[in-house]
Amino acid sequence: MTRLRLGMVGGGQGAFIGAVHRIASRIDDQWELVAGALSSDPGRARASAAELGIAPDRAYADYAEMARAEAARADGIDAVAIVTPNHMHAGPAVAFLRAGIPVICDKPLAARADEAEAIAKAVADTGTPFILTHNYTGYPLVRQARQMVADGDLGAIRVVQVEYAQDWLTEDVHNKQADWRTDPSRSGAGGCIGDIGTHAFNLAGFVTGLRTEAVAADLVAFVPGRQVDDNVHVMLRFEGGAKGMLWASQVAVGNENALRLRVHGTRGGLEWAQENPNRMLFTRFGEPTQVLTRAGAGANAAGQRHIRVPAGHPEGYLEGFATLYAEAAEIVRHRARGTQPPPEVLAPGLDEGLEGMRFIAACIASSQNGSAWTAM
Amino acid sequence: MTRLRLGMVGGGQGAFIGAVHRIASRIDDQWELVAGALSSDPGRARASAAELGIAPDRAYADYAEMARAEAARADGIDAVAIVTPNHMHAGPAVAFLRAGIPVICDKPLAARADEAEAIAKAVADTGTPFILTHNYTGYPLVRQARQMVADGDLGAIRVVQVEYAQDWLTEDVHNKQADWRTDPSRSGAGGCIGDIGTHAFNLAGFVTGLRTEAVAADLVAFVPGRQVDDNVHVMLRFEGGAKGMLWASQVAVGNENALRLRVHGTRGGLEWAQENPNRMLFTRFGEPTQVLTRAGAGANAAGQRHIRVPAGHPEGYLEGFATLYAEAAEIVRHRARGTQPPPEVLAPGLDEGLEGMRFIAACIASSQNGSAWTAM
Amino acid sequence: MTRLRLGMVGGGQGAFIGAVHRIASRIDDQWELVAGALSSDPGRARASAAELGIAPDRAYADYAEMARAEAARADGIDAVAIVTPNHMHAGPAVAFLRAGIPVICDKPLAARADEAEAIAKAVADTGTPFILTHNYTGYPLVRQARQMVADGDLGAIRVVQVEYAQDWLTEDVHNKQADWRTDPSRSGAGGCIGDIGTHAFNLAGFVTGLRTEAVAADLVAFVPGRQVDDNVHVMLRFEGGAKGMLWASQVAVGNENALRLRVHGTRGGLEWAQENPNRMLFTRFGEPTQVLTRAGAGANAAGQRHIRVPAGHPEGYLEGFATLYAEAAEIVRHRARGTQPPPEVLAPGLDEGLEGMRFIAACIASSQNGSAWTAM
Amino acid sequence: MTRLRLGMVGGGQGAFIGAVHRIASRIDDQWELVAGALSSDPGRARASAAELGIAPDRAYADYAEMARAEAARADGIDAVAIVTPNHMHAGPAVAFLRAGIPVICDKPLAARADEAEAIAKAVADTGTPFILTHNYTGYPLVRQARQMVADGDLGAIRVVQVEYAQDWLTEDVHNKQADWRTDPSRSGAGGCIGDIGTHAFNLAGFVTGLRTEAVAADLVAFVPGRQVDDNVHVMLRFEGGAKGMLWASQVAVGNENALRLRVHGTRGGLEWAQENPNRMLFTRFGEPTQVLTRAGAGANAAGQRHIRVPAGHPEGYLEGFATLYAEAAEIVRHRARGTQPPPEVLAPGLDEGLEGMRFIAACIASSQNGSAWTAM
Repeated sequence: MTRLRLGMVGGGQGAFIGAVHRIASRIDDQWELVAGALSSDPGRARASAAELGIAPDRAYADYAEMARAEAARADGIDAVAIVTPNHMHAGPAVAFLRAGIPVICDKPLAARADEAEAIAKAVADTGTPFILTHNYTGYPLVRQARQMVADGDLGAIRVVQVEYAQDWLTEDVHNKQADWRTDPSRSGAGGCIGDIGTHAFNLAGFVTGLRTEAVAADLVAFVPGRQVDDNVHVMLRFEGGAKGMLWASQVAVGNENALRLRVHGTRGGLEWAQENPNRMLFTRFGEPTQVLTRAGAGANAAGQRHIRVPAGHPEGYLEGFATLYAEAAEIVRHRARGTQPPPEVLAPGLDEGLEGMRFIAACIASSQNGSAWTAM
Repeated sequence: MTRLRLGMVGGGQGAFIGAVHRIASRIDDQWELVAGALSSDPGRARASAAELGIAPDRAYADYAEMARAEAARADGIDAVAIVTPNHMHAGPAVAFLRAGIPVICDKPLAARADEAEAIAKAVADTGTPFILTHNYTGYPLVRQARQMVADGDLGAIRVVQVEYAQDWLTEDVHNKQADWRTDPSRSGAGGCIGDIGTHAFNLAGFVTGLRTEAVAADLVAFVPGRQVDDNVHVMLRFEGGAKGMLWASQVAVGNENALRLRVHGTRGGLEWAQENPNRMLFTRFGEPTQVLTRAGAGANAAGQRHIRVPAGHPEGYLEGFATLYAEAAEIVRHRARGTQPPPEVLAPGLDEGLEGMRFIAACIASSQNGSAWTAM
Repeated sequence: MTRLRLGMVGGGQGAFIGAVHRIASRIDDQWELVAGALSSDPGRARASAAELGIAPDRAYADYAEMARAEAARADGIDAVAIVTPNHMHAGPAVAFLRAGIPVICDKPLAARADEAEAIAKAVADTGTPFILTHNYTGYPLVRQARQMVADGDLGAIRVVQVEYAQDWLTEDVHNKQADWRTDPSRSGAGGCIGDIGTHAFNLAGFVTGLRTEAVAADLVAFVPGRQVDDNVHVMLRFEGGAKGMLWASQVAVGNENALRLRVHGTRGGLEWAQENPNRMLFTRFGEPTQVLTRAGAGANAAGQRHIRVPAGHPEGYLEGFATLYAEAAEIVRHRARGTQPPPEVLAPGLDEGLEGMRFIAACIASSQNGSAWTAM
Repeated sequence: MTRLRLGMVGGGQGAFIGAVHRIASRIDDQWELVAGALSSDPGRARASAAELGIAPDRAYADYAEMARAEAARADGIDAVAIVTPNHMHAGPAVAFLRAGIPVICDKPLAARADEAEAIAKAVADTGTPFILTHNYTGYPLVRQARQMVADGDLGAIRVVQVEYAQDWLTEDVHNKQADWRTDPSRSGAGGCIGDIGTHAFNLAGFVTGLRTEAVAADLVAFVPGRQVDDNVHVMLRFEGGAKGMLWASQVAVGNENALRLRVHGTRGGLEWAQENPNRMLFTRFGEPTQVLTRAGAGANAAGQRHIRVPAGHPEGYLEGFATLYAEAAEIVRHRARGTQPPPEVLAPGLDEGLEGMRFIAACIASSQNGSAWTAM
């Protein structure tokens, strides 16, 4: 099987998430990075491309030109990864979608609603695949949990507690990563809620399969002078009557990247935490809690679909991310063959992106309106 | 030092919390149970008393008679423990307070506001000591945490996440313990919120020293036909701007008695969980997280005030409860001597009880009013 | 039911284990301390007794006198607790046994083999009950584990890994507790091996029901000048072919009181650790690991025999110790009635004490003989 | 920077460790697999190569031919990975070393001593780089621990407890992975001791920097009919007086891949476990235990040398393995430039391989000789 050709927009020298995408794309040997508009600064774009082994004629300074040129090449890219700050998603996404090139886009979908709509329109107009890297859905146990809920192992879901706590913005820090995330013109109106709140929200929906109907939110910027929220409290109401809470914080001292999900139903409950992602607690009501391990005893089909090493050999963040690239590869290959990917191919896409945008908007609206319940 | 004489109202055969109070009272050898109105059924009161070694002439069937008789005896009780269901707190509490006998009362303060007010008036009128057994405040590390916050180890508090999850009411269970707790005429209007939500609320206030100004709550009874809430979601606003969330549930499958507190300030964060109460995580911002142990390296004075065994020898629920009895003994002995207990004597009392009642009322009101922020 | 009368030898002011015995004896309300030879210093014996509410005429300075006097009283003690340093066990044990008074003795049995033999002879001659407080056998989950092994839940046992790590003797510390434990004239020839190694050894035997046939040991005193071992490595061979390792250390920095047992058989494995004693991991081969909790789902009869509070309410060191006092009470009451305690009454006694003495001796001999396998 | 060219011997369809090597080689984008003798079966070698995108003219059925041919090509491989069963290491290793092609070889070094010597001679004769994939040394926290010991953070080392427990050979299982590991003609005389015991041994030496002087071992095959050991107990004596224990088992029910190391010195102690490799406990004597995280607060230079994602984003087994490939790349590039790699480049090699062979031999000899202390 030959590798698919990948392009990248953003991710030049000094970027974090671009490097993650590149490693993730390599792990399962499905992709080869061959083109990029890695920076809007031409010199830096060139230098970054050279470092990554991209041929000079495919090192672009402008994503629009890249979309045109790659679409025109016989050996043009099979997909593009967009790893720019939030406010720079829509431009390249629309350009590549309209050029017929599948898009793998970092989350959240966009900084503003009109940008999100432009992406949605391009997807609707073209039918080009669009994948949003809510990468935590790539963890094997997260997928196992989703199937367990779908299989009824937990019964009817009642309570969903999800949280994502960090502490790196506890003080008024300034660096490349912090600056764009706390600048509403680049991140969008939401700070913490967009950056990590959407991950937590997506995870809860991915695992439970439940749509959120309304939120009551209390957003705050604790650090003096900060223009976007850095701590988010939300109560959730799901379709069918389940209830939940979501906490996201970037000022919770003692937390590095503590994404954690708990789901409780009429017959069972489960608990998973991203920082030790190879174990999950599961309890059937009235029985001892079980420690489920990645690929271990009792793993279901979804939990074993993308496994690279046996149980007890921890897989981590990069492998979970790689699973999205493996799914993207399958989607792209099916498209090339004119076939449909089977249902077990799971990749967040436009719907999840729009849902995330609605979540951000509803939380901000609720918070500005006395935490009133706000429909999504 | 001779033992103080303890009486008990409630706690007859088959009761849970009465037995806990009795063990707790014995651990530090400060109390001897000598009288009781252990049941409103005379035969059962007598039999229960006999089992506990209470002399027949001090086995009462009526708390009012007991208050009168014990107050009149030269060797009358030094304090009474009230361990009846919530709606039966006020009657005996008022009777003993007005008889000049200190009261150690189980929580919550009462089932209804008027009952709480009656107790408050009796305390105000008589000055008799009144101790409310929010027993989780007796854990050494909880006390250590309180002092750490007071000492500024966490800086200014920003975020308080507290939760108390159980699963024993996941189904429509019926037994002595379940029945009164789910019967509004005995438990009060709140179910889960009164039974365990008040513990969580009290713990957050005890450790942080912060008063809650307003709540936005979403209460629900998930089990069909249940007349009181069995799951509680609350957003909290504290004086000074800190924010929090409280989750209490009795239908969270996989949880036995999972009371857990996390506090995050400008300079530090901590995390404690009742089910493994001899360790606490503490992080100074920018430094590695520390594992603080009960009586271990770095324990402060509050954390070492009531220690029975060295670090590494786990103390549990009963020892924490016993600490409240040790504090009660000190209060009673000081009163007998006409002296004031020193400030390190910590025992929840009327104020905490009234605060808990306001919390229950505000949450119910908020929940019935679209989760609107409701002042306390 | 009236309380049994307890006497105590040792345990005067400043002692650690004496206070533990007293609390343990009170928790289940079966015992009342009424007599004591708390110190060999008469003044201190008197003062200690007064502090503990012991009547002056039952405050003895000499254990032999106490044994005589108490045996002669109509209201004499029902049992005596011996909580002196190791080299002071045999004297009082023999005196009380020969006076017909049951003995509850701290471990190890004695400092020297001849002392142990004297106790054994007194037990054999008199038939008086003798209980050795290997208190870790009192933990509910330890008892549950024992029954699980006996029930075949683990299949045939193959591997036993037991360890007991502390760090309080890492440096050349001097205080009351450290001094006698590192003085061979008081502790016996073994230091760490006697003080905590015997606990680990006893625990392994208690849970597995297997007799150790031979040991290969490597003992060392790491702290310069220390006269007894402070770190112990032992390989074990059990009857029937199982094998094991035992590590005991008092210089393992980072450990407070880390007693831990793992047992692996043909069909299952389990793991328990004293510092968080309310949970135990159990795995049936090929199935997910289960988290068994004290008194929780799946608890067997042995694990529920002595339970004071429901699952999720942690019981600790003192409650485990109290269980030995509860068993002792049952043994003493049966003796008074002339009946036999039922088989579920579990209390370590002379056999375990002698086995522990043989273990100490065999380890020391092996270590001095190039770690050669040494029969027990 | 262009990718280095990698060849592979072994690792055809159905192999486990070959796939791991390939992923590991890709993660940091330093290597491209371009040639292979993936199977000794020509058809399978061809098919496997085709699947992996290896050009047909570089798909060899014979490693000797591959060594000759690749050495002769201008674009010949820069290194070869040898991922065959143990008894098939020496042949290709010697062939490639003598062809001047650096070797990355799976562990243990060989099945027999004479094979190991042949490799050693080839290394000595040619000076060609030889890297042995004791991959657990690639974990960032393992490297951090090594530097901490070297920096004196633990003081003088006293006690080393290392263990590696699995349960997949609990029963008499037969499959490709199990069969060669339990066949002495392929695995060598050691079973569990060679397969995972050497990993544990290597880890202890890597972190502490201490050479083992002697072992006293007890090896056993618990499964009836098994020809090699499946459980290994070893006592260790290190240069300078430190002592240790090593336990390796493949029949320890409840363990997936539980490699765990504890090191205790005069001033500190640490504890690390492979199944949750992003955290490590560290205690300075007399201070609270710290939770050190991969790349987190307090990480030293060695712990941050190969980091792909920030703290809180777990890295796992494959990333640790990838670090050895990153180091191998640096060694190969330095060799090409005629320069020496800087001291922070860490890769186990021939010395570690020979040490491992001596360890296996000494343990087997000791076990056959009544567990007598056996020099290494």
